[in-house]
Amino acid sequence: MPKQADDGRKRAVIESVSPEIDGGRYPVKRVAGDRVRVRADIFCDGHDLLCARLWHRKNGESDWQRFSMQPMINDIWEGWFTVTELGFYEYTVSAWVDHFRTWQTDLQKKFAAGQDVRIEFSVGLHMMQKALEQAREGDAQRLGDLLQSLQEEKDESLAVGLACSPELGLLMEDYQERGLVSKYPRILQVEVDRKKAGCSAWYEIFPRSWGYTPGEHGTFKECERVLPDIAEMGFDVLYLPPIHPIGRTKRKGKNNSPVSEPGDPGSPWAIGSEEGGHKAVHPELGRLDDFREFLSKAREHGLEIALDLAFQCSNDHPYLREHPQWFRWRPDGSVQFAENPPKKYEDIVPLDFETEDWPALWQELKSVVVFWIEQGVSIFRVDNPHTKPFAFWEWLIGEVKNEHPEVIFLSEAFTRPKVMNRLAKLGFTQSYTYFAWRNSRQELRQYMEELTKTGPADFFRPNFWPNTPDILPEILQYGGRPAFVIRLALAATLSSNYGIYGPAYELCVADPVPGKEEYLNSEKYEIKDWKWDQAGNLKDFIARMNNIRRENPALQATNNLEFQECDNPNILVYSKYDEESSNYLLIAVNLDPFHNQAGWIRVPLEQLGIAKGKPYLLMDLVGDEKHVWTEEWNRIELNPHISPVQVFHIHAHLRTENDFDYFM
Amino acid sequence: MPKQADDGRKRAVIESVSPEIDGGRYPVKRVAGDRVRVRADIFCDGHDLLCARLWHRKNGESDWQRFSMQPMINDIWEGWFTVTELGFYEYTVSAWVDHFRTWQTDLQKKFAAGQDVRIEFSVGLHMMQKALEQAREGDAQRLGDLLQSLQEEKDESLAVGLACSPELGLLMEDYQERGLVSKYPRILQVEVDRKKAGCSAWYEIFPRSWGYTPGEHGTFKECERVLPDIAEMGFDVLYLPPIHPIGRTKRKGKNNSPVSEPGDPGSPWAIGSEEGGHKAVHPELGRLDDFREFLSKAREHGLEIALDLAFQCSNDHPYLREHPQWFRWRPDGSVQFAENPPKKYEDIVPLDFETEDWPALWQELKSVVVFWIEQGVSIFRVDNPHTKPFAFWEWLIGEVKNEHPEVIFLSEAFTRPKVMNRLAKLGFTQSYTYFAWRNSRQELRQYMEELTKTGPADFFRPNFWPNTPDILPEILQYGGRPAFVIRLALAATLSSNYGIYGPAYELCVADPVPGKEEYLNSEKYEIKDWKWDQAGNLKDFIARMNNIRRENPALQATNNLEFQECDNPNILVYSKYDEESSNYLLIAVNLDPFHNQAGWIRVPLEQLGIAKGKPYLLMDLVGDEKHVWTEEWNRIELNPHISPVQVFHIHAHLRTENDFDYFM
Repeated sequence: MPKQADDGRKRAVIESVSPEIDGGRYPVKRVAGDRVRVRADIFCDGHDLLCARLWHRKNGESDWQRFSMQPMINDIWEGWFTVTELGFYEYTVSAWVDHFRTWQTDLQKKFAAGQDVRIEFSVGLHMMQKALEQAREGDAQRLGDLLQSLQEEKDESLAVGLACSPELGLLMEDYQERGLVSKYPRILQVEVDRKKAGCSAWYEIFPRSWGYTPGEHGTFKECERVLPDIAEMGFDVLYLPPIHPIGRTKRKGKNNSPVSEPGDPGSPWAIGSEEGGHKAVHPELGRLDDFREFLSKAREHGLEIALDLAFQCSNDHPYLREHPQWFRWRPDGSVQFAENPPKKYEDIVPLDFETEDWPALWQELKSVVVFWIEQGVSIFRVDNPHTKPFAFWEWLIGEVKNEHPEVIFLSEAFTRPKVMNRLAKLGFTQSYTYFAWRNSRQELRQYMEELTKTGPADFFRPNFWPNTPDILPEILQYGGRPAFVIRLALAATLSSNYGIYGPAYELCVADPVPGKEEYLNSEKYEIKDWKWDQAGNLKDFIARMNNIRRENPALQATNNLEFQECDNPNILVYSKYDEESSNYLLIAVNLDPFHNQAGWIRVPLEQLGIAKGKPYLLMDLVGDEKHVWTEEWNRIELNPHISPVQVFHIHAHLRTENDFDYFM
Repeated sequence: MPKQADDGRKRAVIESVSPEIDGGRYPVKRVAGDRVRVRADIFCDGHDLLCARLWHRKNGESDWQRFSMQPMINDIWEGWFTVTELGFYEYTVSAWVDHFRTWQTDLQKKFAAGQDVRIEFSVGLHMMQKALEQAREGDAQRLGDLLQSLQEEKDESLAVGLACSPELGLLMEDYQERGLVSKYPRILQVEVDRKKAGCSAWYEIFPRSWGYTPGEHGTFKECERVLPDIAEMGFDVLYLPPIHPIGRTKRKGKNNSPVSEPGDPGSPWAIGSEEGGHKAVHPELGRLDDFREFLSKAREHGLEIALDLAFQCSNDHPYLREHPQWFRWRPDGSVQFAENPPKKYEDIVPLDFETEDWPALWQELKSVVVFWIEQGVSIFRVDNPHTKPFAFWEWLIGEVKNEHPEVIFLSEAFTRPKVMNRLAKLGFTQSYTYFAWRNSRQELRQYMEELTKTGPADFFRPNFWPNTPDILPEILQYGGRPAFVIRLALAATLSSNYGIYGPAYELCVADPVPGKEEYLNSEKYEIKDWKWDQAGNLKDFIARMNNIRRENPALQATNNLEFQECDNPNILVYSKYDEESSNYLLIAVNLDPFHNQAGWIRVPLEQLGIAKGKPYLLMDLVGDEKHVWTEEWNRIELNPHISPVQVFHIHAHLRTENDFDYFM
């Protein structure tokens, strides 16, 4: 129903504030140091000018900070503020009719048209006098001076100039009728994460495969030896599958066999045994102390450890005895195992989130997270979050981040788009994506446009994985080493967050379970003996890509992606630009792992501020090659066996000394 | 901030309900008899099945009606309800996990996979027993019978069939855990208008030009003579410029001259003189009784009178004396006239909506509307609503429609898109548009897509005017009679609401003020003597178009528009379909007023259910010609001087007796 206005004289209207997610139900996501640009449709009846303000404050602060908003085209106004601290900020918008600036503009027009403006003048002086009565000290002084000058000025042209000065308009802004300010009806929120939430390179290993004796269960202590290589490759997050005791009942054997052989280590996701549950360390990996030592060693190498949160149990988990009410029991007295009929997952027992004892269950699961945070972990990769209630995650993440705003949660939900988006909206910091199944130029462009230019851009931070222990995509099965190079380059440059499961990746392991996108002899069910430095491995290439990411701010964001033109559909061309550092990259990837592909690509000269016909320099950061181009359209050729990817650093202004140093 | 869930076990999620305008701030618009389709994204964690309901009620009713929603693709669910009464309806959505149907589906899959389902069976029987305890009488009987049959059935296959029956699923729907229903957090609104709000043909005249003596001021009584012709042309709304006393001070002369000659009648929009203001009838038109008589005569011809609401005053309006506080006074004691610097409109004084006495001003203006409603008027064309505050209109329209939901307000705002949209959102029933300036195929397609397929489709009802007394578009100035035919055909078939200013339109009057899109010797400032039946007039063509509109429900809606393909960019092809009556029209318009244009057009056979290669019949309702086509692509040719438009009625099913009658 139309609502009666509180004061019918509030004439400014504020609509369509963005960013805004689901009417303000969820915060938008940014990282510390980000500039939050806010737009709104703001207008009023008639021809009067408006003033608009963007307000913000850190949650919990009492005072609001305010910034002016500026009109763009089509009644859109824009303003911005910078977020520096972790946690939540609030923001909203206000606007009102700026009678004084309207008067200034009208006066100018009338004077220019040769009209008699004496009466107009007295209208304006009256407004100034009224403002003067309530002006603060400094303002009062200046306003008084200006008023006097205006009254004394005999030359009408000079008086009009003085009256219409921007300084006077600004001074008057604060002293107009404040009761008639329109306020946007909602206060919106930004959640500010640390920078790693927006840019991270993940590496996943199974520590148990890194014992000193091939084929035997490795320990954290032994696994420390992998840290230097991973650090040298340039990763900054080391993610470990669950490190807890593994169930014995119905333990899976090699290749997901329902029956295990003696010595089979079992899937780390079948959590819990008589040795403990989600807060315990698998004895074969070591003790809690060893884990803490591993954490600390990793930190020395610039690596943060990410743990796996898999809220499910093996048949032997202590929860089954201690909290039987958290599980679903069948009429025959057996516990309900996981299933997706007709498939059965008999080594896994799901928690029953519909238990009447749900508050205790939620608290216990929160205590698991807090326990690991207390050990020094602040990144969690969450297993299958889409099989637990959304309300639970919203509560859990909210509670944890309230105390620990630095914590990062990565959602491992490979499911329907709206489910994945909801998890991101309700609080997950980063999200797995469909990247593994987007290969053609059209697929990649369409998917990236969706992620970076539509709703999800404000809440869904993609984390691109070309492989995982669960996923060996078809293209890696048939594309050979070039496919591994291509997919890594795409992941590392399209998305500022990406990761690989290694060393299967660097070693280009490509044997699938026949007919499936899964690894044969998966490390999930057995201990592997990796020959990490085998010829043809990708360690140097990966190190180079991660180095390029580290040195180029343009690659440390995702939403700054712009696709560029190329006449060969096998070549994907895109650019990334970082405004603050003026860092501009143009990236070309041959999507065909088998053939040379050549094509003409268009360099967006206008955007780069390069005049047509002027030479400009490019440095291919992958091949360390220099080019001087003068045209808008230029030919490139990419050989998948040599280097299917070029990352051009473009320096638009050739003539400064620095540039010569850099390029020559 | 993430909010703690009320009951953490509510697993269903409801998002993105549509239609919804600005988070429910405004109602969506429909007309009586419409089916309101509601969609929402609905899903839960895991694989369980859901149940979703759409709830609605007429405002003021205590009981909600509920309908099931059905899942479409991509987690979108759809439901609908029908609105029959004028005024507001509320609607919202609920959803919950349907454990019983989940059980049915799982049981079926397990049984099909040859698994032992005895334990599953007892789980389901237990659910049925619990439901039986709370079932209503009829349901209890049936549920009890089914439970007994299931318990007694010895054949497992038959038992599974019985257990999985849709009837049982439906019966169980109501008796599942009701506490765990998720409700969409907002209650949304539909405003239901009468059918004429959605489909109307307007005709605008200046009654004063229809006196018996050419050049002399006509009266309502004399003007009654135009009613038969207007009715015969098929219009159903007759819109009159303001009928009130016209000011004398600063009265405008012919061609908007700032000085009037004796005898100049003045602009009807300069309202108010010593003879009265907005509630008075201009004495030269007659008395209030004469106006009422005119209303009643018009009604006899099927014509509703629309009055003009122009909330502004001449210098002589009684308000200036009686309520000086409603105006803005200049320091020299003169009243502030209307201006858009440096332009001055000295015959018009705007009301000051920022007066402290605004509540009394609002009430007075409402009383004007109510006064004319009491005389029998229920359609208002509102002059320049964008120069009065939005809050005022929202209040005024809300107040009036609360008592008189049949009233129609047409917004005459030719201004920026967001301002026009806001006026529509806040309550205007119909709106003037940019149609007058959309001529090329691309312009028309783009504009129509915006109006019918994006946000405005739910709140902005376009009313297409190819001319008004203020607007003589360029294309009518240079395009000759064919342009008038083309533009009328477009207006009448693209939009279900349209109107013309006549007889300037039928007579193809095309003389502009040089360099402007305005009429030379405009009727706004002088009394015209129209030779209405002059050779070449469009009365018959207009009558035919209005007749086609009346006989074809497909033309009585706007959002049902779909563009179709044609290889000639000078020809615009589109279709309109009415589901209920299966009325399908394919319309082709030659946009070029000078040349024959021919092209191949694609008939959407699949949508029409016509098998490829089967013959189908078309009747051109404009030319009364029949065609049999068999192909998807067909050639047409449109001569602008004969008939630049064809409206094909397509009958897909040729072989029924009726069709032969119709076509042969």
